[in-house]
Formats: sequence, C-alpha cells, structure tokens
Amino acid sequence: MKRTIYLEDLPLDEAWPRFAAALQSASLWQPLGTETIPLSQGLGRVTAEPVWARISAPHYHASAMDGYALRARDTIGASETTPISFTLAETWEDIAPGVRPAQAVNTGAPLPLWADTVVMIEHTQPSDDGLAVSLRASLAPWSHVRPLGEDMVATELVLPANHKLRPIDLGAIAGSGHATVTVYRRPRVAVIPTGSELVSSEQLAGSREQLPSSTPALSQFPHLHPGQIIEFNSLVLAAQVEQWGGLPTRWPIVPDEFEAILAAVRDAAATHDLILVNAGSSAGSKDYTAHIVQQLGQLLVHGVAVRPGHPVILGLIERGEQLAVSSEQSPVPSLQSPVSNPQSPISQSPLTPIIGVPGYPVSAALTGEIFVEPLLARWQGQPAYEPPTLQANLTRKLVSHTGDDDFVRVAVGKVGNKVLATPISRGAGVISSLVRADGLVRVPRFSEGEEAGAQVTVHLYRTVPEIERTILCIGSHDLTLDLMAQFLAERGRRLSSANVGSVGGLVALRRGEAHLAGSHLLDPDSGEYNVSYIHRYLPERPVLLITLVGREQGWIIPSGNPKGIKGWEDVARPDIRLANRQRGAGTRVLLDYELGRRGIIPEQVVGYEREEYTHLAVAAAIASGTADMGLGVVAAARALQLDFVPLAQERYDLVIPVEYEEGELLRPLLDLLHDGDFRKAVSALPGYDVSQMGMRHDEVNFSRD
Amino acid sequence: MKRTIYLEDLPLDEAWPRFAAALQSASLWQPLGTETIPLSQGLGRVTAEPVWARISAPHYHASAMDGYALRARDTIGASETTPISFTLAETWEDIAPGVRPAQAVNTGAPLPLWADTVVMIEHTQPSDDGLAVSLRASLAPWSHVRPLGEDMVATELVLPANHKLRPIDLGAIAGSGHATVTVYRRPRVAVIPTGSELVSSEQLAGSREQLPSSTPALSQFPHLHPGQIIEFNSLVLAAQVEQWGGLPTRWPIVPDEFEAILAAVRDAAATHDLILVNAGSSAGSKDYTAHIVQQLGQLLVHGVAVRPGHPVILGLIERGEQLAVSSEQSPVPSLQSPVSNPQSPISQSPLTPIIGVPGYPVSAALTGEIFVEPLLARWQGQPAYEPPTLQANLTRKLVSHTGDDDFVRVAVGKVGNKVLATPISRGAGVISSLVRADGLVRVPRFSEGEEAGAQVTVHLYRTVPEIERTILCIGSHDLTLDLMAQFLAERGRRLSSANVGSVGGLVALRRGEAHLAGSHLLDPDSGEYNVSYIHRYLPERPVLLITLVGREQGWIIPSGNPKGIKGWEDVARPDIRLANRQRGAGTRVLLDYELGRRGIIPEQVVGYEREEYTHLAVAAAIASGTADMGLGVVAAARALQLDFVPLAQERYDLVIPVEYEEGELLRPLLDLLHDGDFRKAVSALPGYDVSQMGMRHDEVNFSRD
Repeated sequence: MKRTIYLEDLPLDEAWPRFAAALQSASLWQPLGTETIPLSQGLGRVTAEPVWARISAPHYHASAMDGYALRARDTIGASETTPISFTLAETWEDIAPGVRPAQAVNTGAPLPLWADTVVMIEHTQPSDDGLAVSLRASLAPWSHVRPLGEDMVATELVLPANHKLRPIDLGAIAGSGHATVTVYRRPRVAVIPTGSELVSSEQLAGSREQLPSSTPALSQFPHLHPGQIIEFNSLVLAAQVEQWGGLPTRWPIVPDEFEAILAAVRDAAATHDLILVNAGSSAGSKDYTAHIVQQLGQLLVHGVAVRPGHPVILGLIERGEQLAVSSEQSPVPSLQSPVSNPQSPISQSPLTPIIGVPGYPVSAALTGEIFVEPLLARWQGQPAYEPPTLQANLTRKLVSHTGDDDFVRVAVGKVGNKVLATPISRGAGVISSLVRADGLVRVPRFSEGEEAGAQVTVHLYRTVPEIERTILCIGSHDLTLDLMAQFLAERGRRLSSANVGSVGGLVALRRGEAHLAGSHLLDPDSGEYNVSYIHRYLPERPVLLITLVGREQGWIIPSGNPKGIKGWEDVARPDIRLANRQRGAGTRVLLDYELGRRGIIPEQVVGYEREEYTHLAVAAAIASGTADMGLGVVAAARALQLDFVPLAQERYDLVIPVEYEEGELLRPLLDLLHDGDFRKAVSALPGYDVSQMGMRHDEVNFSRD
Repeated sequence: MKRTIYLEDLPLDEAWPRFAAALQSASLWQPLGTETIPLSQGLGRVTAEPVWARISAPHYHASAMDGYALRARDTIGASETTPISFTLAETWEDIAPGVRPAQAVNTGAPLPLWADTVVMIEHTQPSDDGLAVSLRASLAPWSHVRPLGEDMVATELVLPANHKLRPIDLGAIAGSGHATVTVYRRPRVAVIPTGSELVSSEQLAGSREQLPSSTPALSQFPHLHPGQIIEFNSLVLAAQVEQWGGLPTRWPIVPDEFEAILAAVRDAAATHDLILVNAGSSAGSKDYTAHIVQQLGQLLVHGVAVRPGHPVILGLIERGEQLAVSSEQSPVPSLQSPVSNPQSPISQSPLTPIIGVPGYPVSAALTGEIFVEPLLARWQGQPAYEPPTLQANLTRKLVSHTGDDDFVRVAVGKVGNKVLATPISRGAGVISSLVRADGLVRVPRFSEGEEAGAQVTVHLYRTVPEIERTILCIGSHDLTLDLMAQFLAERGRRLSSANVGSVGGLVALRRGEAHLAGSHLLDPDSGEYNVSYIHRYLPERPVLLITLVGREQGWIIPSGNPKGIKGWEDVARPDIRLANRQRGAGTRVLLDYELGRRGIIPEQVVGYEREEYTHLAVAAAIASGTADMGLGVVAAARALQLDFVPLAQERYDLVIPVEYEEGELLRPLLDLLHDGDFRKAVSALPGYDVSQMGMRHDEVNFSRD
C-alpha cells in the first residue's frame, strides 16, 4: 500500500506553477460556480456577472427641492420690481387657458408633464388666499430638477463582474432595479486535523474556563499529559478560510492511522472543493498524507523550498462518491459555518485539490497564506491578496538559507522618523511569534540574507496607523509590562515589548530602536540603580528615569523546598542546578554581584551557563524539574505555584529619552503611572511595591553637567 | 404635538463632541457589554478582557525532531573516529547501570525525565541487531529540544483586551489552554426607512429578475410609478453596520406618518442599541424625525455643516418598555443577521442614541461613515476606522463652501508617475458617483477650495494596488466601454471611464490625466476621423490611434415615430425639440457639420442649448418625452426601446500615448481588441461593426514628420 516517499525541495516559483497548471487542466483554476442571492446577503461577495441597470434612476424627472414645478418660459420677465404670479394647480385640467400654472412638489416628487423647472419654496411668496405664489426672478429650464437617468440610465453598466460588493454597491444595484445579485459561490474547504497526540481545545477546557480577568490567574494547569498537544491548527486554518471567503468544515481529530485518514479524505473529497490535511505532510514513519494522495490521485508536489513551511504537499485526488459515514466519522461543522448550501452544488470537476499542511503552527498559518489564499481568491474571481507594505530598516543582520524562500517574521515600529524591523528569530513551533509579528520580510532564494541597517520591504499584518501607535519597549522583562500592555490597549496604544535584558534595552535606546527600556541595573559600587549604566550606555542623551515598581528578587525553588535552600550561598552547592539569566539582564547583574561579594566563581555553579530570557522561563525550568533554583521575582514563582526564598528588594525603572517623553505617543503610558486602577492591579501581583511608581530620578541628567 | 424645528449649521467639530459628551453622561461612550463565545466564532471579534495563558506551551520539554533522546554528558568524546553507542530503551528501568541510554522520540514527543538533549535520526547509525544506535559527534544540552514554556508560559499575557481577533490569535488562545474567549458583544442597530413614496426593491423585483448576463438586457422597465422611489438606503446602512461589526435589523418601510414612525422608533429603542431613521431628518412639512426625538428624549443636534449630509439629527431617547407589536409592525430581520442573541442583553443604559440620516443616498452613506462607524467602533473597544490615504494632485479646481466641511468624491488614478484626483461633481442623489469614487478629499470649513494642480490627501475607498491597476479612459462615451470594463475586470484591470466628449479626452491626454481617450471626431475638410484633431490637441505627442468600433449614428426618436422624422432636415422643424450633446462631443461635431452643410443655424433648432453628456442621457430625454429627437447611436435607442433613423456610419477610435501603449497596465486592453469573445459581445450590440476593431492608423504619426 505505501510507496517510498521522498521530500523534495522544489522552489516556490516552480511549485506554484505546477499546482496551477494541474488545476487548470482540471478546470479548477477559475471560479467554481455562481449563485443568486438577495442583496441583503451580498456584502463582501463577488459579482459573477456584470450588473446592468434594469431601470433608470431617477426613472422620471424629479424635483430636487421642496418647491413649485413651473414652465421656465412663464418666468421670463420676473424681477424684484415685477413679480409674476402663478396659479396653484393639482392637475393640468384645473388650469384655465392663459394662466401660468404652478404645482407644489416635494423633494423627489415627479415633475408634472407640462413643467420643465422647479423654484425653491424659499424663493416664492404665497398669495393671501393661498391659491397662488409669486416669483421675483426668472428661472432657467431644468433648474432644481434631477432629470430622468441622472444617476443611471437603464442598460448602463452598474458594476462589472469580479467586483467585491461594498455597502454602497448594494444600494446601487437595488437602485437600478434588482433585488438579487449573482455572485461566485463560496468554496467549501475541509480542514482535517490528524495526529494521535492531539487533544481538541474544546475537550480540554472543560469546566474551568472562568478566570479572574484583571490579573494573571494563579490557576492550576489543566490536566494534559506530556506528549499531548492541543490541536488548534484547524481553528487557525478554518478561520483563514472564513476570512478569505470560503466555508470551512472542521473535521474531528483523526488518529495517525492510514485507513482512518484515507476515509476522512475520501469523505471530504465528495463534499468539498478543497481539502487541507494537517499534518503528516513530512516523510516520517507516521506521515501518511503523501501516500494517501498517491493512492487517491496525483501527488504534484511534496516539499517546497520555503521557510517556515517546507513539508507542504500539493495534489489532486479523485472526487469519488460520498461514502456512507458512521456517526463517529461524520464531520462536525464549525458553529459559524453551515456545512452545505443545497443551492450551490460542489464543483463539477472529477478532481479535488488537496493540500498537506505542515504541523508546526507558524508553518501551517504561512502555508495558508501562501497556498490556500491565492486559490480561494482565484475561485472567487479575485486577485491574490496583496498585503500593505512598508519600507523599514533592519535592526540586525538577517541570515537566510540560500536554497529557500524565507518568510521572516519581524516586529516593526516607528522610532522618531525611522521605521525599524526587528527579525523575530523563533522556531516554527512558536505561535506567539506570529501573533506578535507585525509583518513578514521575504528573503528570496539565492540570497544569504541582509545586513543590519539594510532597507527591506515589510509585508504588513497590521495597518500603518497601528504601527504608528505602537510603543516599542526593549529591555528587561517584568510581569508589570504585560499589565501595562493591557491597560494601554484600552487607551489606544499597543505596547510591543522585547525582552533582551536591562543592558540590551539601554543599547537599543542608544541605537534609536526603542521608545523606552525597562531596567533594574544595580551599580555594585554605589548601590544605586540604573544611573551609572545610563551614563555609560547613553552618554549625552537626556533621558527621563522614572520608577515603575519596587520588586522582590529571590530564589525560585520547587514547591516544598525539597533541597532546603536558604540563601545566596546555596547556589554553589554541587547538588543544586541553577537556571541562570542571560548576560545583560539586571537579575544576572545582581547574581554576579552577590556571587562576587561571596567569592563564588561561575565554575562552582552547576548550570551557570544555562541562560533563560525571562523570569517566567526560569520559573518554568524549575517547574519542569530541569533546574533546582533560579533568581527571579516572586510573581514568577507564584504564577507557576513554586516556592520562593526572598533575598533583595530592587528598583525597576523605565528609561525614556526626553524627545519621546514629550511626544503624544507615550502620553498614555506616562499617565498610567499615576492611574489608580493600574497601581491597584500591580499591587495585586505578589512581591510588588508601587509606593515609588512614577517617581522621577532627575539626578540622571543633573549629574552629567 | 409638533414644535417648530429649525435646521442648524453646527460645525462637525462641535456636533461630534456634543454627541459624545451626551453619550458619555449616559455611559454609552464605552463598550456596551461582553459575551463569552467559542473560539471557532471568534474571528473578527474584539477581546473584552486580556487573555492570560492558562498553561505553558509546550507544557513539557518536547523533542523538536524525529530522533533519539539522550543525556548530553554521555555524548562527550564522540567523533568520526570514535563513535559512541547508545542502548535503546523504552523506559529508564530497562537500562543497566553504566549503560548509555537512548530513547526514540518523534517530533513533539516529551523527553524522558533523565534526558536533556535530542539527536536527529539522520545523525545516528543503528546497530545490526537494532538494539542500539551510535553517534559520531557530541551534543550540547538542550539541542533539538523545545523547552517547556518556549512559546508561552502559564500566566503570561497572550493578547491584551481591545484586540481584534485574527486567525492566528485564535490558535494562540487555544494553545494557551482556552476554548472560549470573552469579547465585546455586537451592537444591535435598527435601520428604519421612512417615506410614503418608498418601494422596497424586493417588492419591486418580482419575477423578472433573470436577465441575460453577457450583454445589456433589452428589458422592459419594471412597473414603477413616477414619484415612487426604490428604497435602498436601509440596505446600505445595514451593510455598513454589518461591516463595522454591528447586528443590523432592517425595519419594513414606515409611511410618512408621525404616529407610525413614533411607534417604530419606540419599538426599536426597546430592543436595539442604536436607531437610524432614514430620512425625514430635514425641516420640511413631512420631516418628523426631529419632532419624534424631541418627544421621546433629547434632540442634541439638528443640522451639521457637512456636505453632503447636512440635515443630520443626533439625539438620545428614553429606552422605555418594548411595546406589544402587531404582526404588520414587527421588524423583518435582514436574512444575514439574527435579531437577537439571548445571551447578550441590550445596554443597561436607560437611553438609546438615535441618528436621523438624510435621504439622499450619498448623504446617507457618508452619515454612516462620519457618525455611525466611530460609535460602533467605540462600542467594540476599537479606534475609529482610518482609511488609507494617498497624496494626489487635483486635475481641476475644487470649489468649496467656506461654511461646511466638504467631503468631495474623487476619482483617482496613476498616470505615468503622477497620482491624480478628479473631483466628481455630482449631486448627493447620484449613488453611482459614490460607487465610482475612489476616495474622498476633505475640504475643511473656512477653506474656499483648492486650485487645479494642488496636492491633496485622498482618503481611499480602494487599496493602492487597485488604484495602480486602474486604466483611466477619459473622452467620448460608448456602450462598448461598459463591455470593455466588464471584460477587463476579469483580466485584473479596472477601467474607469469619464465622459467628457472626444475633444475633452484629447485635452485630458495632453494634460497627462488619462491613459487613453475614446474619440470619434470627424474632420469636416478631409472626411477623416480623429487624425487632424490629434495633431491639433496633441502636437508632437506620439500616439497610437486604433479603431475600437464602427457604429451607426442617427436620430433617436420616440417609439412609432409619431412626428414622422426622416432625415437631417427635420432638426430645424419648429415642432421638434432636440436633445443635443455637449460641446466637444464627437456626436456634436457631426451634428454641427451636417447643420452647416445644410445652412441650418443653431437658432433655428429648438432645444439646441440643451446639452446631455452621453448617448444614453439623450435617449432618456426622448424616452421621458421632454425632447423629440437626438443624435446618437442605435444601441442607446434600442436600450430604451426607442426608434432610430440611421444617418451615418462613423469610426470610434482609441487614442493611446505610446508610452502607455508599451506599459504592462494597458496590455490586457490591447489584447482585448483581438479577443474573439469580446468582438462577439460587441457585435451583439445593435449598430456596431467590429470588422475594423484593432486596426492601427499609423498616419497619425507619419504625417507629422
């Protein structure tokens, strides 16, 4: 049954044409079909036919004002000194020969056939008996008249085919005499998650969903066994399909069994226009997708030279007949998307395209963007989506594999007049990196990358206004920054924080790569926080140094303190493995200071070289049992239900160059330091002291003069 | 009951703050409430609370590769010449003391507790008995391992509040242990169309909806009486509400009766968050909205100094109790939007905002953009929509009323390197002008407008790529251009055609304001088409002159030819009223040429001064009975079921500067002239001859040397 499968490295600019050519041969590189729907359902749909006006608009000569319909020639000679009187008439028959008629008309009312102009009511005087009006100026023919067909003339083109309908378009179609519109039908897309290790998030969440909303919850982990993975790619892929105009059907999780996946795929092929199988698209022992595509049809592409997203499968399989499905196998439609619309049968092609989507979430999402979106667009008569782009300068070197088209996630921000893009170098398994990404930089094949400072084109995930209201905070991590991000979001700002340690933050400020930095650097000589470091790293740069919080540092240790850890000295015990922080972190400075005071050298400390980048990562190392202690804040220990040995109280400050302090962008952030609700939320975190929040340390500038 | 109502002229920058302040006092200038929904329904919704990670991701140390889990210290010393062998183990208990263990792991599998690194399967050699693998290189700890919390650590902020959910966000929320998300509920908006003259388009369309799709249909007018107006503003407003995240309810049309409108508004107030009443917002005798707002609550603003859209009403009314509604009065929900979600009660405020929306469709749509969108955004925790902008140069002077904020519809195109904005100076009743508009230019109060050539900011309705694939055709109108627009839409181009007559088109080309012009200018001396005019209006500009169609010109006359019109001479009959074309139109040139040949002077022609801008507008004048004849093409006569007296065959050419001819933009258009389907579609129009389509007239350039 299974044949040997090799993973190719087909360049993207060969993979797509191969796929497109096969689709074209199968008459699938074109819209799938049409349906006629009421206009009230038309928003966002795409016209499949031109819309021609059935009637003219207006379909009669209409008064454009409240006033009186007249004959222009009757008004000749009217002036301030020689008013002309008009006799009010309901119908033409009312009027005696030789009398000048006038008929009251409201805006939109038809002109009587005998009339050819309209005078505004404000420009007339009624007679005392109310049976006539007089004018003191003559009128040109067709004054204040909307002539028949002014807007649209019957048979004119109202909208061409392939037009995505906006609210105003629906009005124009209705106004030209239609109640319905013929649009391309929405493609039906089956999303089939496969993997015996998968657990659906709905299953997992159970009854403990309710969490306190304003502060991080100190909840227990839901019961999830090591090796089990929460299945969410189908949620992402289905939402992508929905966003791109398709009708997704999420299949229940199919275990890693050849026959089970085969049955799901055959079933989906009979009822859907496109099948996405996630994952099993690589060449491992349990990667069945390629075998299934070979068995049911044609495997066109297996492996594309893109990063992330290499193990992609593109194929075409026989549609076949719909199988009788048992109740366990029947797909569970996602709640927002009806499974089928009886008015729109699936494509008449005997073939169904199938895409094997890689399993890592970043790869899966990018496969959606690269392969699924252009196909759904094509099926709906639209060009592939072109994201807005922005020119930006790289803050650091970007190394790329020459053999691949690289799609590099970047964070983008505008600091001063410079737009900066910082590569987010995280694995394809890190979904949060794509959540945080502001865009992608595409590094083509044969390029080895770009130097720091190079200008690159960013394909944006956010709008330029969103980028412009983003505050870039680079430096030391603190849980308070998460709370701050939350409060700022409600105040029209986005806080993008990158955690590179306190020194890294000061360096980023010097390079003009951030609006502010969080810093808690102890000067071993003076016992003072941050001032001497600012002088060293930001010479001659006027900055605001302002305290965010005071916080407790100490040993994060396993619950129950099984190794009896008491103080600084325990770090040198041979039976104790440290989880350390990276160089430049304020916490690392504190540790090195305290080690130095005690004459302990790094070689004495087991695990000294294991560097983690955040307090929570240190806590996670302890929680997982791979380290016995780590220096960090009490909140991180509490968050993961660990114990804590307090050692020191330290000051965590914000460093803000004065030019940004005075700008509009940072105002809500500075206001927040004096906001009662924010202080209350921070106080609720264990180990935090807000008594000095907002205190300015002017010595940082005075001392330099 | 009714009090006297005056229409104000409140500046926009006073009207909005007054409205916002009243909403704030009523606690309505903030999100209305929240609801917790499954993630599968979350796309496009806005988080009402921050999302904190419930679990870490991964929640265990996971292998990042297919391979073997090992202890890094066991690999020390392995090299090409000294491989180290590892014994395969299912569990730790299998392993004898002193033996180096290895455990097979697939990607995503948990590391055994004793292991701290992973070797890729490709870098190992299996032993012959399959019980061991050997390595030829040492490994660092934590190689090919995704450590616990690499992606997210429990309690970290996943997403802040006020974040609009994208597909990838749904994945991150699920991956951090949630199955639901708490979002702002969607505001419910009642859209109440009022007016005794209104007819719903659904009602009107009846059974004759099916029309041929590829060519303009020669259909009869649906039965609509003069004075009746198709109601489509509610369709536009409801679609706007839907687009902006609200849940619209379209009310059935309410007649112009105070009590009926009052009842509808009271009923809507009890069940909706916002009421839009359209129209009756001015100060005429049947404009009840302001009176109703006064009766039920507070009339905040009546009349805003904006154009279009002056007679806007902003108010707050008492919510009251839901009335018992009779079946006739009960609202008909639009099909796409459920009326109510029992989980999300309407706002607790005792007040409901109400907006009186002006009746002209352009005014109504702009009122939606100016007043409704920011409110719905606010209610969903979002900033008001900021459209993309583009800098452009005005092609002609823009005159503005100093007292008003003017929102000027413009067509935008890129010709060569210049982005040009042409004001569309049509009335607020002309919905097609807003359909065709590419954006708005805002001319603030106190400005008298802008000079031709001035740089202005365009707030775009289309994306920049759409603008860039727009072909600007300015010149003479021909029905074939509508067909061409239709065919080009399927080929990735948008044809924007402005009808200014043949000479106007050549002038536009000279000014660099168009990519091509349609022209049918007869030279009275040579009997030749277009060449001498091109030499006059485009001296020294190399152009391509290429024939689009040959077409029949003649008298468009009422059906049955009641006045017995036979030829050119009838135009001078005193009993015959002409509908003329504007100066510069090729048809006008033809008429003037033929009049001159016959010694007929304009003063002899009744209606000579009545200028229409298109063939169809001339036909509409005949159809409406306000003129007896007009010169035009047979297709226009047939479209409106009029008769036609053929007089001459003329050549209609395209004039294309060679620099555009050679560009990528116009290629699909030039290809179309040799496309069989296009020729067939044009041939199907009466009076068109495609035998010369695509013929190049090189004499236009040779003759200048």
